[in-house]
Parts: sequence; C-alpha cells; structure tokens
Amino acid sequence: MRIIEVGPRDGLQNEALPVPTELKRQFIADLAVAGLKEIEVTSFVSPKWVPQLADAAEVLADLPDGVLASVLVPNQKGLERALALGVRRIALFTAASDGFTLKNINMTVDESLAEFERVMAAFRKAVPDGWVRGYVSTIVECPVSGPVAPKKVASVSERLLAMGCDEVALGETLGVAVPRQVKDVIAAVAHLSKERVAWHFHDTRGTAIANVAVCLEAGYTAFDASAAGLGGCPYAKGAGGNLATEDLIYFLEQNGIKTGVDPVRLAQASLPVLQHLGRAPFAKAQLASLAE
Amino acid sequence: MRIIEVGPRDGLQNEALPVPTELKRQFIADLAVAGLKEIEVTSFVSPKWVPQLADAAEVLADLPDGVLASVLVPNQKGLERALALGVRRIALFTAASDGFTLKNINMTVDESLAEFERVMAAFRKAVPDGWVRGYVSTIVECPVSGPVAPKKVASVSERLLAMGCDEVALGETLGVAVPRQVKDVIAAVAHLSKERVAWHFHDTRGTAIANVAVCLEAGYTAFDASAAGLGGCPYAKGAGGNLATEDLIYFLEQNGIKTGVDPVRLAQASLPVLQHLGRAPFAKAQLASLAE
Repeated sequence: MRIIEVGPRDGLQNEALPVPTELKRQFIADLAVAGLKEIEVTSFVSPKWVPQLADAAEVLADLPDGVLASVLVPNQKGLERALALGVRRIALFTAASDGFTLKNINMTVDESLAEFERVMAAFRKAVPDGWVRGYVSTIVECPVSGPVAPKKVASVSERLLAMGCDEVALGETLGVAVPRQVKDVIAAVAHLSKERVAWHFHDTRGTAIANVAVCLEAGYTAFDASAAGLGGCPYAKGAGGNLATEDLIYFLEQNGIKTGVDPVRLAQASLPVLQHLGRAPFAKAQLASLAE
Repeated sequence: MRIIEVGPRDGLQNEALPVPTELKRQFIADLAVAGLKEIEVTSFVSPKWVPQLADAAEVLADLPDGVLASVLVPNQKGLERALALGVRRIALFTAASDGFTLKNINMTVDESLAEFERVMAAFRKAVPDGWVRGYVSTIVECPVSGPVAPKKVASVSERLLAMGCDEVALGETLGVAVPRQVKDVIAAVAHLSKERVAWHFHDTRGTAIANVAVCLEAGYTAFDASAAGLGGCPYAKGAGGNLATEDLIYFLEQNGIKTGVDPVRLAQASLPVLQHLGRAPFAKAQLASLAE
C-alpha cells in the first residue's frame, strides 16, 4: 500500500495566510517521522498565481532523509526551476475536462498534454531515472463543464502513461462522487495497470472513504491524502476538502493493512500549521487519535 | 427508504449546556419542514441522569403535524410518563454487551430484556397499535468489554423482535467499524426480515458512509442519523459523533434514492441549536449545502 501525502502542497496552496517556511519544513519533517514515505512537498507554479508556495526552493533545501519528495511542475519554466534544485520526482497537472484546465492552467486538455510532452522529454533527459506522476482531475464532475465521461478519464490517463508518466493520479476534484460513480471510472480504466493508477479523493460531502473502499476492493494500492484534510476547501473555515490522511490511515489499518504510519504522530503533525491558520483540527480520525 | 432522525434526542442528550425547550421545538419543526418523517424527539430517562431532556413533556406538547415522533423509554416508570402524554411510538435501549448496559442502564443485557418484556406488555395493552423499536448498541465493539461477537447481536435482536419490537436499530456505538466488520454483522442477522432492521452508525473516524454503503447493497432500507452530526461526541468541541443526516441524505440522493428531504433546509435546521451551543457547523454535506 502506498499513501501519497499531499498536505504540504495541495493542502496549503489555496491558503491565503502565508505559512512560514520553517513551519512547512517542520510539517514535512513531522509527517516523515509519523511514517509517511511519499510526500508532495511544494509546487513550481508561478508565485504570482500561488504565492503560498513561493518558497519552494527553501522548502526543498531542507527535506528529511528517506522521504520520496515530489513537486508539482506546471510547465517548462517550472521544470527548469525544479531541475536547478535537483528535483527527481515531479507531478504534472491536467484534467478530464477542458473547462477545468482552461480555468486553472489556461490550456485545453490537449494543449496541456502537448506541453507535458515537452516537459517530460526535458525531465527524462536531465533525470533519466526520475519519477513522474500525471494528475487527472475532474474524473467524475467538472465545476465548469458538468459531468465527465469515464472514457475521457481513461483516454487522458492512457496518453499520460504513453508519454512516460510512471503513474496517473485520478482526482475526484469536487468531492461529489459516490461508489457507484467511482466504479464506472474503475471500469473505464480497468485495462491500465493497477500499479500505475493512484486515487485522489476529496471528502467535501463525506463520501471519500466509501470511495476508497471500492478502489481497495478493486485491487488498487495507492491513495493520495492530506494531513488534517487540509486543502480542497471551498466552503467554510475549518471544513475539510481533501480526504484526511488520518481517516485514510485509520480505514486501511482497520482493514488489516499495515501502513507503517503512527496515527497519533500523524494527528499531531499538522497541529502547528492549523494553529498558525487559526483552525481547530477537523478530521475525524485525527480528533479521535488526539483524544486517545 | 426510511431515515430516522435522532438529533433532538440522541444528538442533544449529552450536551451539558441546557437547550431551551423552544429551541428544541423549533429544531423538530424545522427538521419536519425539511422533509424528515420519523423523528426521535426526546427521552423519558430520569431527569437526574439526563437533565438535558427533563422537558420531555413540554417538547411532546407541541409537535409538528404529520411527523412520526418517537421517544426513548428506559423502564416502566418512563413508560408511565410517556403514556400519560399519549405517546404512541417508543424506543427501548439495550446492547450486545453486558459491559455497556451495566455502565449505562445498570442492568445486564438479560436483565434489560426482562424489564422490556414488562414495558412491552404494558405498552401494548395501553396502545395496541403502537410502535416499538429496540436499540441494540455496541454491535461491533464495546467500550467496556471490547470486541462483540456478531452472533450476540443476532441473539439480542431475535429476542427483541420475538417480544414484539417492530424493529431493531443496530448501533455501532464507538464509530470504529469498517465495512468488513459490518458485513459480519449483516451475515449474522441475515435471517431477520430486512424491513425490521435499522442501522445506526457513528462517524467518529469517518467510516459511517462506507458502512451505510454496504448495508444499502445488502438491501437494508432504514438508517438513523442526527442533523449536523450532533451527539455521540466524546472527543472535541465541534466534532461529530453520530452520522450526520446531511451526509446520509447526500449519499442516498447521489445513489438515485429519493428521500424527500430538502438538503438546504436540513442544513439550516440545526443552526439555531448549534449557535446556542457555541458550535460551528461541522458535517461535511451540511457545510457544502450551506455554501451552495
């Protein structure tokens, strides 16, 4: 089982209040101590668009040993910055709907894939044994274009894998899906190697764990999550958007799957960041662990 | 599909701050306006033990039309109070583990069932066409005795149904269970009529909706829930314990099941009570509905 912790990047990127670099470093270090092995630590998106992650270079300069740290890279310019800092694991970001990519990265899906071909070529040349993940967002519904056809998810995934991505991360961006809909996506991507497909659920309406359950049953072994449920939070102060790593770890362990993650240390890892943001802990298994 | 709203009773009973009777009446009225048809409105437990519900008679005196209102009745004395007020739907409370009943109602499970026989006889005599539900708590794990055998859940359920309960409500009191464990309980009670078994999940660790999903798949059609996730909250101010009615309604509707409940009105129904308690809304689908 692989758990890909996205809190430091996806969890923080939309926070308006700047989080000091030292707090981010401590967050990442504490997540590593809790037992998380794969962490998406920052992004090389333009600081103009995501000022919260303008300190990407400083965050990268002090990573804990033994962690597989990845960074989001939006384009060739971002890649150049990442490569100059010795990055060996990158993530590319597209979607299964043009409405979403046009709004977020100002390209159609096709245009983003064309850009990624160039990014990929440059990255592979610089880091032949590097690792690349491709995000496919809006796998069930797009906030701009509405419902998304599962076959569109499959075709974008195929193209990302064909151009050399080591894995695709399928993102249910709106947090609207129930297992019935996730099963339709699973059916559409069933021809892809399960080892190359990770799932990224949002828990906006409380359905993320139910969706994880059907992916587990189908044989998938890689899930994204964000400590404390940070990120993906369009609604209310304190509300979670991303699936909380605490809830995911609890669910996996209670299913007899050893994750190597210490639930109490994990529950504590986000507390300094939450305190800085003026938030109380919100994730259910986090609250339970903190109370035990 | 039946949704049994337990917020006014189970949701409020452990709140230390007294909620004014008028607020409770408004809460119940607003839940009814939102479309909830079955509501457990209060309890005739001794006011000494549950001072929050000492105003049971006043709450019962002003119920909205068309609602199937039930009350918790712990014993013959509570039944007499309820009958004097014309109550026609009662709920009895036991568990699948002696540790839990001894701590909570000062009887073994067997003793509670013997007491219920007497309560049931008196109730049926007074209200021949009345309705009785029997709660079976701790169906997976007991906070006192530890893991509970599914066959124990089945035997207590059988005895409650045999003595004349119209339904049993199977309660996962600790909120620890995952679908694997719920499936074991489902297998143990598979010989009982599905129309006579309701499920009562706590969402303490984020697993309630996943558990609802397996019950739905197995053909069950009755679920308890509490508006805003009120109640069952041992941990932290603002944290939910009970499965939130908002999350349940969202999940059912997204599965194509018409509930007749208006999600926005439901999301709003608990706001005055939450405000009185000094709480921000916490349930995920509630936050989503309030933001839409």
